[in-house]
Amino acid sequence: MAENGAKRIRLGMVGGGSGAFIGYVHRIASRIDGDYDLIAGALSSRPEVAQESGRNLGLAEDRIYTSYEEMARAEAARPDGIEAVSIVTPNHMHFGPAKAFLEAGIHVICDKPITSNLEDARKLAQIQPKNGAKFLLTHNYTGYPLIRQARELVASGALGKIRVVQAEYAQDWLTEPAGDDNKQAAWRTDPARSGAGGCIGDIGTHAYNLARFVTGLKTEAVSADLTAFVPGRQLDDNVHIMLRFEGGAKGMLWASQVAVGKENGLQLRVYGDKAGIEWSQENPNYMWFTEFGKPRQLLTRGGSISVPAAASMNVRIPSGHPEGYLEAFATLYSQFAAVIRGEGADYEGLLPTMADGIEGMQFITASVKSSANDSRWTRFDEV
Amino acid sequence: MAENGAKRIRLGMVGGGSGAFIGYVHRIASRIDGDYDLIAGALSSRPEVAQESGRNLGLAEDRIYTSYEEMARAEAARPDGIEAVSIVTPNHMHFGPAKAFLEAGIHVICDKPITSNLEDARKLAQIQPKNGAKFLLTHNYTGYPLIRQARELVASGALGKIRVVQAEYAQDWLTEPAGDDNKQAAWRTDPARSGAGGCIGDIGTHAYNLARFVTGLKTEAVSADLTAFVPGRQLDDNVHIMLRFEGGAKGMLWASQVAVGKENGLQLRVYGDKAGIEWSQENPNYMWFTEFGKPRQLLTRGGSISVPAAASMNVRIPSGHPEGYLEAFATLYSQFAAVIRGEGADYEGLLPTMADGIEGMQFITASVKSSANDSRWTRFDEV
Amino acid sequence: MAENGAKRIRLGMVGGGSGAFIGYVHRIASRIDGDYDLIAGALSSRPEVAQESGRNLGLAEDRIYTSYEEMARAEAARPDGIEAVSIVTPNHMHFGPAKAFLEAGIHVICDKPITSNLEDARKLAQIQPKNGAKFLLTHNYTGYPLIRQARELVASGALGKIRVVQAEYAQDWLTEPAGDDNKQAAWRTDPARSGAGGCIGDIGTHAYNLARFVTGLKTEAVSADLTAFVPGRQLDDNVHIMLRFEGGAKGMLWASQVAVGKENGLQLRVYGDKAGIEWSQENPNYMWFTEFGKPRQLLTRGGSISVPAAASMNVRIPSGHPEGYLEAFATLYSQFAAVIRGEGADYEGLLPTMADGIEGMQFITASVKSSANDSRWTRFDEV
Amino acid sequence: MAENGAKRIRLGMVGGGSGAFIGYVHRIASRIDGDYDLIAGALSSRPEVAQESGRNLGLAEDRIYTSYEEMARAEAARPDGIEAVSIVTPNHMHFGPAKAFLEAGIHVICDKPITSNLEDARKLAQIQPKNGAKFLLTHNYTGYPLIRQARELVASGALGKIRVVQAEYAQDWLTEPAGDDNKQAAWRTDPARSGAGGCIGDIGTHAYNLARFVTGLKTEAVSADLTAFVPGRQLDDNVHIMLRFEGGAKGMLWASQVAVGKENGLQLRVYGDKAGIEWSQENPNYMWFTEFGKPRQLLTRGGSISVPAAASMNVRIPSGHPEGYLEAFATLYSQFAAVIRGEGADYEGLLPTMADGIEGMQFITASVKSSANDSRWTRFDEV
Repeated sequence: MAENGAKRIRLGMVGGGSGAFIGYVHRIASRIDGDYDLIAGALSSRPEVAQESGRNLGLAEDRIYTSYEEMARAEAARPDGIEAVSIVTPNHMHFGPAKAFLEAGIHVICDKPITSNLEDARKLAQIQPKNGAKFLLTHNYTGYPLIRQARELVASGALGKIRVVQAEYAQDWLTEPAGDDNKQAAWRTDPARSGAGGCIGDIGTHAYNLARFVTGLKTEAVSADLTAFVPGRQLDDNVHIMLRFEGGAKGMLWASQVAVGKENGLQLRVYGDKAGIEWSQENPNYMWFTEFGKPRQLLTRGGSISVPAAASMNVRIPSGHPEGYLEAFATLYSQFAAVIRGEGADYEGLLPTMADGIEGMQFITASVKSSANDSRWTRFDEV
Repeated sequence: MAENGAKRIRLGMVGGGSGAFIGYVHRIASRIDGDYDLIAGALSSRPEVAQESGRNLGLAEDRIYTSYEEMARAEAARPDGIEAVSIVTPNHMHFGPAKAFLEAGIHVICDKPITSNLEDARKLAQIQPKNGAKFLLTHNYTGYPLIRQARELVASGALGKIRVVQAEYAQDWLTEPAGDDNKQAAWRTDPARSGAGGCIGDIGTHAYNLARFVTGLKTEAVSADLTAFVPGRQLDDNVHIMLRFEGGAKGMLWASQVAVGKENGLQLRVYGDKAGIEWSQENPNYMWFTEFGKPRQLLTRGGSISVPAAASMNVRIPSGHPEGYLEAFATLYSQFAAVIRGEGADYEGLLPTMADGIEGMQFITASVKSSANDSRWTRFDEV
Repeated sequence: MAENGAKRIRLGMVGGGSGAFIGYVHRIASRIDGDYDLIAGALSSRPEVAQESGRNLGLAEDRIYTSYEEMARAEAARPDGIEAVSIVTPNHMHFGPAKAFLEAGIHVICDKPITSNLEDARKLAQIQPKNGAKFLLTHNYTGYPLIRQARELVASGALGKIRVVQAEYAQDWLTEPAGDDNKQAAWRTDPARSGAGGCIGDIGTHAYNLARFVTGLKTEAVSADLTAFVPGRQLDDNVHIMLRFEGGAKGMLWASQVAVGKENGLQLRVYGDKAGIEWSQENPNYMWFTEFGKPRQLLTRGGSISVPAAASMNVRIPSGHPEGYLEAFATLYSQFAAVIRGEGADYEGLLPTMADGIEGMQFITASVKSSANDSRWTRFDEV
Repeated sequence: MAENGAKRIRLGMVGGGSGAFIGYVHRIASRIDGDYDLIAGALSSRPEVAQESGRNLGLAEDRIYTSYEEMARAEAARPDGIEAVSIVTPNHMHFGPAKAFLEAGIHVICDKPITSNLEDARKLAQIQPKNGAKFLLTHNYTGYPLIRQARELVASGALGKIRVVQAEYAQDWLTEPAGDDNKQAAWRTDPARSGAGGCIGDIGTHAYNLARFVTGLKTEAVSADLTAFVPGRQLDDNVHIMLRFEGGAKGMLWASQVAVGKENGLQLRVYGDKAGIEWSQENPNYMWFTEFGKPRQLLTRGGSISVPAAASMNVRIPSGHPEGYLEAFATLYSQFAAVIRGEGADYEGLLPTMADGIEGMQFITASVKSSANDSRWTRFDEV
């Protein structure tokens, strides 16, 4: 049962079979707050892997599917059918399942980016979900308590008028050509499965989304310089972008998968005319907050603050007891559960939606276009 | 279901009603890896709180108990009765339930310290658990992956002969006299419920246990200076201890709940004649490892290392994706599940047991005695 | 006397009167290693300030000048005249004194940027210094021991082929409009005295120079977006630049004087296909060095390293005893002294010269031009 | 000349010949602020080293001495004789020179500890210095600006009543037996030259002095456990001490020269009932300051603070431009110069004196005695 006594939501999963990374993450996230029970799955496009993975997860035989279309149809027809589904396939396999389940009246939790191209994203937004089925895009980093706090600080005016945004997301795991056996690397560097963006789609969108989530600034245009450093790589593995926001704020965004020494270096820094904040995902329980002319303050998750706490922070344990990536991910799951149950309308504005997904695809598409045009400033409405 | 397809273990809980901190933590820990289902509870000694808390957690009416004795009896008698129970009451209420469930053949997961006095701990060790029921003491900090790594580094000889151990655990939440409404503070500063140690029992034992877990050194004697700084407080809120280990290593241990600015500052530093390590709980995904005459290395949870990884590390997600307190706690739960199912004999030596509980009580008792005798060096076999 | 028994070099100073910041820094830098004696000065363009400042520094009456032309003439004529002069005036007042002293056969130590415009810089390079008088541009951050180490690491191939360079220099002291009484702010935000660049000239050039010094990469082109955020400010106070280097490496450079919470945040990060380094000026005695697939190493100034030490590091005191800004500055002074004395030909390639000064002006000029052309990629040979 | 136009003080040096570490440090410290000129020296007890070292430093032939007695006599007799002398010999060679120069009316700047035994320290305090010659003990770490700030914070009551003091000073350079060629190690591990304390005298006294300087607390008693870990070593290389202060505050002090990975890890943490501070020497431009129930603040040297700045802070350059060990050392030199010139009576209470030297010897002596008596609490007035 959930901690608040509500019945657990019956959950299915598409993708996430043996050896998958993000499916496993979604499963843990669904369990942490006790709001879901995973009972069905089309865990792989390869039937035997789907079967074996399903059995390993203890799914009943008749809830193990080898096709997501069949799963959507069958589950929608059962009285005890799943109420929500998690889609954790590679990018090009998001659109089909998302459409199928939404049209079957089943809530969708979809990994990012929303699709592998902007056209699909726009088509998805035209779908008429049956019975008001809802959609969650797991830009999981928005679930971190201090990111919620940062958003509220900006919204409250504590930073004043925002001037400068510095976002970055640097890793090093694609520094060398990936071997054929590296399943995670294979699809991410393949345009057929990832879309036109490599690093920019895989992690650049996270950094972009985080900047947007915290600042609320609307993007005017991007000037991008995308590079594939590793010989033979077809998609970018390093991304340099300058941003212009409506109202005059400026930004820079660096994403890289060839920055040796970086593990999962997502970092956001925002400076207004009154104060600045700095946050880094690798140590997410701390955030610098400095008011001009005063000493730097190190805010802690759930700790003492000199500003109002964000109501939407889901702080499970006291400050000093570190929460991490999985708890932030779980917050999206549990707040989406509240939305599904109709308890949590307040969360709805916070949780990443289809509109965020489309904007993410605009970001990728405009950046790729700018880069192809010698970094010409490119507006989102051009793509 | 568990990730490995095993059936979930049926779990009960004693203590952990509304407003409790550690019971909530245990519940999350039990869910993360999907190895347990909480289905019964005696969640409070106050019947109405027990009822309401049980309902809030969605327990069936006939699985909500107002007495742990009754719960042990009834659950042992049911074919679908609980297989394990989590005891998350204040210290003086550990012994009774632990005895009752072990004698009923139900596995026990007990919060630390094991009891409120050494005599009870020794009595508990004399119990004959029915059907080989097993006992886990949740010294949860031993579940951190890098603590497992540290233990393995020491065991492998990478540090050489250990010379110096510096352990500390500093907080500040008891800096001022606690109000009557502070439930967490009330029992921790009450000798009737905590036992003879305040800060030393609440957090000092964690620091001690961690030092012992990592180094494997046996303690010879302690010289302690315990202080209650807050006027009117009956138990120590600051602890200074010098330690002597067999074989000549020396240590210091500082525990405090009045160190302003410290949230949950558990830290361990170990120096041998070949290398040293330093680890801090508030940012637990990193550990310094320095070999003499070489640059400091910052090892990361699941990241590249120049030494063999600890086989017992339960690394759920890649390095750079921070895991935290709850995951470390969950590792104890999931590895204990493996032990219960007979899958995980390898873990048995790693998981804190009754012997660790008794040693923790010796540590408290010897330290209190030393402090009362002007810090005279006091051996564990004197108490 | 100098530590090596050589006679101290007789030094003069132009600028640096009462209330000046950088002149004071130059004086300390000149004293630390005992290689110079300050004996003459034209410390201010205002005669009474020049007189008073000279007396305060204990200069003999006849060595206090109110005009640098007079000073150059008089000192060159004296048998005990100054051998070198430090020019520490605002940017637009570098060219005149530098020309005068070089043509008088007196060595010049000149603050950066070399001049207030590229044309002057090129003219200066055409000067025929008398008697081989030498020129040092105080890009002082190149004097940090670990920056020397970084340069050597790159040169040795330890990083492999360089792919990505991230340079930044962020401050916050110009977050608000500067009052008229703020002498430091006044000239830096005045095009007549600073030149066409504000923040980019004041600190952006330092970041650029540091990146070039360490990597040795030649710049191909820049794409820049310069902004003056503070209402009424005539020069940029925030700078976003993308860089392309010969051979395919890419870079980003952020400089800002409105980033609230930043004091003197100069930072350099360089990633090659074998290893990466990260260094931050505010804690300059440490540098991260990570080889791909190995743990991060924290190199310390003068500490253990797994790679050859840089011969040009001027390490005065053991690791763990922090050196700072003044020592790095002093290293330029003492190594220039060695060059002047003919002891130190090895240093000559390391010390920033007129060519570096011209390149710095190209960087400023090309960036300003690019920004005025909607961030068009602009080559240095276009300016 | 000094920056304030005063004439430089004529300085001599005893010890500090070729290869010496601390003599070189003293020389730089004497130069930074331009208050001294080194013109005479008895730089070694070995005549040929004294001669060569003197020549290398450019001393005039007749100012190079081979005996400090001769130097004291000759310099006192010259009209242009030295006004002050720096004593930078091993501990057992402090007493003789200090006595000789004070009795000759020459101010003394003496490295710590003041002597090699308590008896000598007390004898030195009985000396009648001629002409009011003054004495400075170079507990150099008290010169750090933020340590001055810390002292003022405590004195102002910002921390409230002090409860807990945690001081530590850990290094690793004596982890292995020192070779015969290690001059620095040789005398420090030799009772004949160091006195009864090894690590405790060399660095423990610094940590003790710093705690005393900042808190102003008087020590009541110590309980110590000293260890020589390296086989064959005659003096302690690791020190564990518990402290009791008058008024009820408690402390711990750890000093070690065998803590692998530590370079020069001097650290001070002080907790009162209102606020706490934490400072670490290796990154000395930052200090944590936390008021109970408020966020942690990171104070910076010369940066914004929410409390009054320490008037005695000698801040040469703006925050963000790191100052280090040498500047802190230089502050003692320049403030002592102000005392000598009669400008700086305000500094006199701040600069470490003979009384501090005696207390340092009491600390060593009481600790050695306590350790020899199985860590019995030992009062300073017992030794």
